[in-house]
Amino acid sequence: MLEELKKRVYEANMLLPKHGLVTFTWGNVSEIDRGTGYFAIKPSGVEYDKLTPDDMVIMDLDGNKIEGRYNPSSDTATHIELYKAFKNIGGIVHTHSPWATSWAQAGRDIPCYGTTHADYIYGSVPCVRNLTKEEIDAGYEKNTGVLIVDYFKDKDYEAVPAVLCKNHGPFTWGKDGHEAVHNAVVLEEVAKMAVHTEAINPDVKPAPQILQDKHYYRKHGANAYYGQGK
Amino acid sequence: MLEELKKRVYEANMLLPKHGLVTFTWGNVSEIDRGTGYFAIKPSGVEYDKLTPDDMVIMDLDGNKIEGRYNPSSDTATHIELYKAFKNIGGIVHTHSPWATSWAQAGRDIPCYGTTHADYIYGSVPCVRNLTKEEIDAGYEKNTGVLIVDYFKDKDYEAVPAVLCKNHGPFTWGKDGHEAVHNAVVLEEVAKMAVHTEAINPDVKPAPQILQDKHYYRKHGANAYYGQGK
Amino acid sequence: MLEELKKRVYEANMLLPKHGLVTFTWGNVSEIDRGTGYFAIKPSGVEYDKLTPDDMVIMDLDGNKIEGRYNPSSDTATHIELYKAFKNIGGIVHTHSPWATSWAQAGRDIPCYGTTHADYIYGSVPCVRNLTKEEIDAGYEKNTGVLIVDYFKDKDYEAVPAVLCKNHGPFTWGKDGHEAVHNAVVLEEVAKMAVHTEAINPDVKPAPQILQDKHYYRKHGANAYYGQGK
Amino acid sequence: MLEELKKRVYEANMLLPKHGLVTFTWGNVSEIDRGTGYFAIKPSGVEYDKLTPDDMVIMDLDGNKIEGRYNPSSDTATHIELYKAFKNIGGIVHTHSPWATSWAQAGRDIPCYGTTHADYIYGSVPCVRNLTKEEIDAGYEKNTGVLIVDYFKDKDYEAVPAVLCKNHGPFTWGKDGHEAVHNAVVLEEVAKMAVHTEAINPDVKPAPQILQDKHYYRKHGANAYYGQGK
Repeated sequence: MLEELKKRVYEANMLLPKHGLVTFTWGNVSEIDRGTGYFAIKPSGVEYDKLTPDDMVIMDLDGNKIEGRYNPSSDTATHIELYKAFKNIGGIVHTHSPWATSWAQAGRDIPCYGTTHADYIYGSVPCVRNLTKEEIDAGYEKNTGVLIVDYFKDKDYEAVPAVLCKNHGPFTWGKDGHEAVHNAVVLEEVAKMAVHTEAINPDVKPAPQILQDKHYYRKHGANAYYGQGK
Repeated sequence: MLEELKKRVYEANMLLPKHGLVTFTWGNVSEIDRGTGYFAIKPSGVEYDKLTPDDMVIMDLDGNKIEGRYNPSSDTATHIELYKAFKNIGGIVHTHSPWATSWAQAGRDIPCYGTTHADYIYGSVPCVRNLTKEEIDAGYEKNTGVLIVDYFKDKDYEAVPAVLCKNHGPFTWGKDGHEAVHNAVVLEEVAKMAVHTEAINPDVKPAPQILQDKHYYRKHGANAYYGQGK
Repeated sequence: MLEELKKRVYEANMLLPKHGLVTFTWGNVSEIDRGTGYFAIKPSGVEYDKLTPDDMVIMDLDGNKIEGRYNPSSDTATHIELYKAFKNIGGIVHTHSPWATSWAQAGRDIPCYGTTHADYIYGSVPCVRNLTKEEIDAGYEKNTGVLIVDYFKDKDYEAVPAVLCKNHGPFTWGKDGHEAVHNAVVLEEVAKMAVHTEAINPDVKPAPQILQDKHYYRKHGANAYYGQGK
Repeated sequence: MLEELKKRVYEANMLLPKHGLVTFTWGNVSEIDRGTGYFAIKPSGVEYDKLTPDDMVIMDLDGNKIEGRYNPSSDTATHIELYKAFKNIGGIVHTHSPWATSWAQAGRDIPCYGTTHADYIYGSVPCVRNLTKEEIDAGYEKNTGVLIVDYFKDKDYEAVPAVLCKNHGPFTWGKDGHEAVHNAVVLEEVAKMAVHTEAINPDVKPAPQILQDKHYYRKHGANAYYGQGK
């Protein structure tokens, strides 16, 4: 079971450079097995072209290392908070992909300007606030997760599978590692187009809500008809 | 005949990722055989690197599936409206190519700023309005086609083989699927350059009409002299 | 001799897609043999991935086709005017490379903002005016060349091996086709950086003249010391 | 020893085109052996795809050529000044990478807008002033180095391993040639994102100092915990 999980997480991690989302080691993917509560995650600071499936680190949700010769990603404590609070997700991605990170650095939510965005993400991609000095000192990576979870406590984290951390970068999630990577690619693409959209029309407004609803529910929920069914 | 049509449409679809116009499954090409009234179109939500010619779906202009194991593109009803109204076209492309989609999101026509544009498209690329709630509820994809056709009812759809749907993205067409893809590439390139042009000179005006005419008619109509003749 | 010339011009043309300067057939390179007055040029509208050395068209400076089964580039008459007036050049390039074309569409000279520009081009890259209706009707391509030559009549075309034609795109030249392509790559790079430079600092001024002089003369003229000497 | 040094410097130079930091010959890497005081550097104006390890030029810190059939990079005198003043560095890179060069052309420091920047560079990347006519005439390349060294005389060059020379381009450094290249890649990425960040939010402020500190010291100094330790 762990071998299969490590292989899947390895493959999901290798999609990040393939899709142009990472420079050097600036990203990580994890995936959890909800049965055991173990998750696999990329080791910290190891280059993508030297990674092997066996380098993935197995952790539990208390932060104990179960298996692996490397230290896990320095963002592991953030992943743990998200897995504990978002019960329906199975995979998490963090990158410094340049367009999404630029929105995070700018400290702005990404408005939903069109159907590309609405097909995957319901409404704006939120940008959560900076941590305070106390929060950073008390546990920077854990409190990054706590802050994200707090933001979503009265919102639907499945309908908005992405968040920007101010002055830092994006996290995305999904039912497994591959879907979380898929959402990271979508986020980067809509982040890029939103910058161009505002350059073309500085007074642009978000897409009409009825159009956002149409596209989101064309692909999600009981009445979805996009694709080949389940 | 259908095998040949499916092969051509498959090849035209595969040009979209080659030219960088699609991410994941965000695009589709169709081509019609005017003799039978059948057209082939990409299946919905199937990834490009898994497509085969045999995956193409054969449809008629009443929306009946003639052949194919997959559901056709969710945009099929839009293609049908265009084929029914634009009698001289043989191929249609829809993408979410980022620069053209950014203009669609911004809700602006793309002005003709130069000869690259004028060589292929006579005048601005129009951006048609959003559908109303009633139009969306009554048939989103079909009414997208109806709206485009209505826009062109007193215009020359052969001289302007491209349109932007507000907050959505572009459709292009041509005498066959390959020419429709060619026009999608042209559109993306002129959309990109128009953004940069306005950044360089916010007060820029469209190219002089005499220059637009010169370039368009150098390549189109009875007096064309670009290329190697017919 | 002609075989060698065709081979060189073929190779120089193939550098355009390699350096990302052309989409489809939107560019051409020529090179002249000053002894015979013959020059080789890309055929009109033939795709790069189908070109062979033997497809190059041999022309003389009166516009007669000497050899070749294809029509020459539709811009041939422009090349002829430049070769007749600029006696020290041996190669010419025309492209629609996106950043340089965006400056042409914006109708602005490209200021010299740094040493990358000053290393190759002395001062601004000029953008020449639109042709009048009379000039277009009397011979669009020839008069494009006449206009460029007229602009440079009291300037040093060797120190400024590039020009932008308003609402059209760039021409570059050099001692042979390869050097003309080299200058087309330089032009695209400095055009791109000039857009970013103005975005970063809207009040930016050109580089100090003493710095421009230092870099230009470090690489050109009797006191040059860049590179490995002659 | 020299063979090993030349091989390392060759490999570091070849990383520049791999990471998209150079066009043609617009860049150079050197690395010093502090024991002998000899350093290896790229030859001037030689194309990357023709370089071999044996083409690297060995110099001493007085500017004498120790070994090599080529002239060293025209920027050699700048490298010498940096090696003489910055005792803890072992490698230096100069490029005209487009985003960093655009900031240099704009004459602005790059603010620290996020953790991608703070992970590697403590605070802004400074842009040093133009040289005066007297400084250029007295020794352009040497005085470029003198100016950089003077800027850092009361600052920590190890915490800020990058500088922009106004209207010219960036220099970066590190403990060896490879780390200097690594920092050149980081610089280009943060320069790009800083442009987008300001486009998204023209009133953006630098990242909070406590966040900058957290990220910088997570990777540097006695309490670092990013990566796999030493």
